[in-house]
Amino acid sequence: MKTHLVTGGAGFIGSHLCDKLLADGHAVIAIDDFSLGTYENLIEAIEHEHFKFLEGDVANSSFWHQLAKDCPTNSIDVIWHMAANSDISAGVKDSTVDLHRTFLTTFHTLEAAKALGVKHFALASTSAVYGDLQSVLSEDSAPLNPISNYGAMKLASEAAATAKTSTDLDKLWIFRFPNVVGPRSTHGVIHDFVRKLNSTPRRLEVLGDGTQCKPYLHVIELLDAMMHTVRNSNEKINRFLIGPLGDKGTTVRYIADLVIRLYGTNAEIVYGNGNRGWVGDVPTFTYSTDKIYSLGWKPKLTSNQTIDKAVGEIVAELKSPVVALR
Amino acid sequence: MKTHLVTGGAGFIGSHLCDKLLADGHAVIAIDDFSLGTYENLIEAIEHEHFKFLEGDVANSSFWHQLAKDCPTNSIDVIWHMAANSDISAGVKDSTVDLHRTFLTTFHTLEAAKALGVKHFALASTSAVYGDLQSVLSEDSAPLNPISNYGAMKLASEAAATAKTSTDLDKLWIFRFPNVVGPRSTHGVIHDFVRKLNSTPRRLEVLGDGTQCKPYLHVIELLDAMMHTVRNSNEKINRFLIGPLGDKGTTVRYIADLVIRLYGTNAEIVYGNGNRGWVGDVPTFTYSTDKIYSLGWKPKLTSNQTIDKAVGEIVAELKSPVVALR
Repeated sequence: MKTHLVTGGAGFIGSHLCDKLLADGHAVIAIDDFSLGTYENLIEAIEHEHFKFLEGDVANSSFWHQLAKDCPTNSIDVIWHMAANSDISAGVKDSTVDLHRTFLTTFHTLEAAKALGVKHFALASTSAVYGDLQSVLSEDSAPLNPISNYGAMKLASEAAATAKTSTDLDKLWIFRFPNVVGPRSTHGVIHDFVRKLNSTPRRLEVLGDGTQCKPYLHVIELLDAMMHTVRNSNEKINRFLIGPLGDKGTTVRYIADLVIRLYGTNAEIVYGNGNRGWVGDVPTFTYSTDKIYSLGWKPKLTSNQTIDKAVGEIVAELKSPVVALR
Repeated sequence: MKTHLVTGGAGFIGSHLCDKLLADGHAVIAIDDFSLGTYENLIEAIEHEHFKFLEGDVANSSFWHQLAKDCPTNSIDVIWHMAANSDISAGVKDSTVDLHRTFLTTFHTLEAAKALGVKHFALASTSAVYGDLQSVLSEDSAPLNPISNYGAMKLASEAAATAKTSTDLDKLWIFRFPNVVGPRSTHGVIHDFVRKLNSTPRRLEVLGDGTQCKPYLHVIELLDAMMHTVRNSNEKINRFLIGPLGDKGTTVRYIADLVIRLYGTNAEIVYGNGNRGWVGDVPTFTYSTDKIYSLGWKPKLTSNQTIDKAVGEIVAELKSPVVALR
């Protein structure tokens, strides 16, 4: 049994990570400020004897000073930094959202790792660091010109973390996530569509022309990949792309059609113009997952199969019962 | 005549940039908080009728709010963001130095560009974004794993700036500097050696074994390259490495020998161990300047010729007159 600290532990991916770590026999300390996370996401974890939850803002150094006082040095084995603003379009409108919630959370969590004597650090990063780069993306693709503040502050987070490997950290894992879907998500295209249908069940307005095509990965597969990587990679800096099976993404049209079908409505789909949903949206990208494959991890689902599973889950989670009765 | 705003305008490179822009017939607004910059660096500029100086911290958003009130929208053509912590080893000891003075200065200057309606932005970046990457470095080299907080916060700055090209900026120039030397410098190996000889004229202690080998560029050549690039490059994001003539760097041994000779002492040189001067120091790197060459700019001096020139200038500037009489 090891002790894992998870920032953003009540959030979408963070809460699933807590459940997984507890199921694998570890102790977990989760931190969240409930800006996006919810208590409901922790309903299973909170019952566990080796789970501890702290409410706090990890971008606030005084939060960490208090924790360092209460927590013996070297008592935490790994920090998983999952806290971030996951609403990319909100961050495009107001840069300070991603400054504080995506970058400064990382900066202060890295400082905390030093204060707490934690030598292993896992960082959630993103394909958004590549911006509009038009090639099959791999770990070493360049140049990195993010076009959203979210992508920029994730790249900034990667940079702050790699610098710490020359002073404080023995091992760093950087995971560049694609679009991750599944239960407990707080944003994303499926989420948006279901919420829109809750308001207007006969009409679904889509941002852009629906040809946007991206790889989607299920959160359960993501966790499996991260666990495998932490167990099996041995560099000082371990950077991995994680993606679904195959090299095909899923179009927004595919998702819109499926959401309508599983929602049980015959809503008219109204498409917008152009292939960019919003400023900072990257319309198409393709991932190379050769590096993680060569480490012995392979996903089970293609991007379309992932969407098939996640749309069912998210419709079940979010579909308004009031609408259902109309 | 255009109006240029220069952050860090009283600093080493910033003050030379102000002089150059004024000489080329432009109006200049310089900002500095005198943390590293000095009034002496502006002695020529301050006499110029088209020069305006503002003392302030560009990492402080209220400074910019005040400036935006006093300054008509769209009255500034280009922002040159030169303000940064240039003391890499100080930033390795305390990460908040580079957070505030290297990254948050950039973040808030970018926000100010938006508020002021400035569409052209030039950013001073660094070869330190590459960390220990062992290859001939080009604009598209990857992965970017900076090993100093300075390099990390410069990479973070690049990322924050590229994201702004999707919303506020029409053109962005990112210059990755090598080691820049010349009059008015505040840090660096020549500077350190002269200061050490001022204290102990018979003994020069060198960090590391002296085999560290890096390309050095003279500040006057750097300015020439930046001006040429801004005039001639037309992408939305224009990223350029700037380096000296040829592909050879200069060793610390070469510099130590030359400083002692031009200082006029017969000091004993005492070398340390290993080829890293300090944590976060990158011992050797080689630059490809093919991209800026293909834009029609070529430096006049090799790295060694640059050092020959700069050591003379810096010894003349810094050698203590008291020591000279000993």
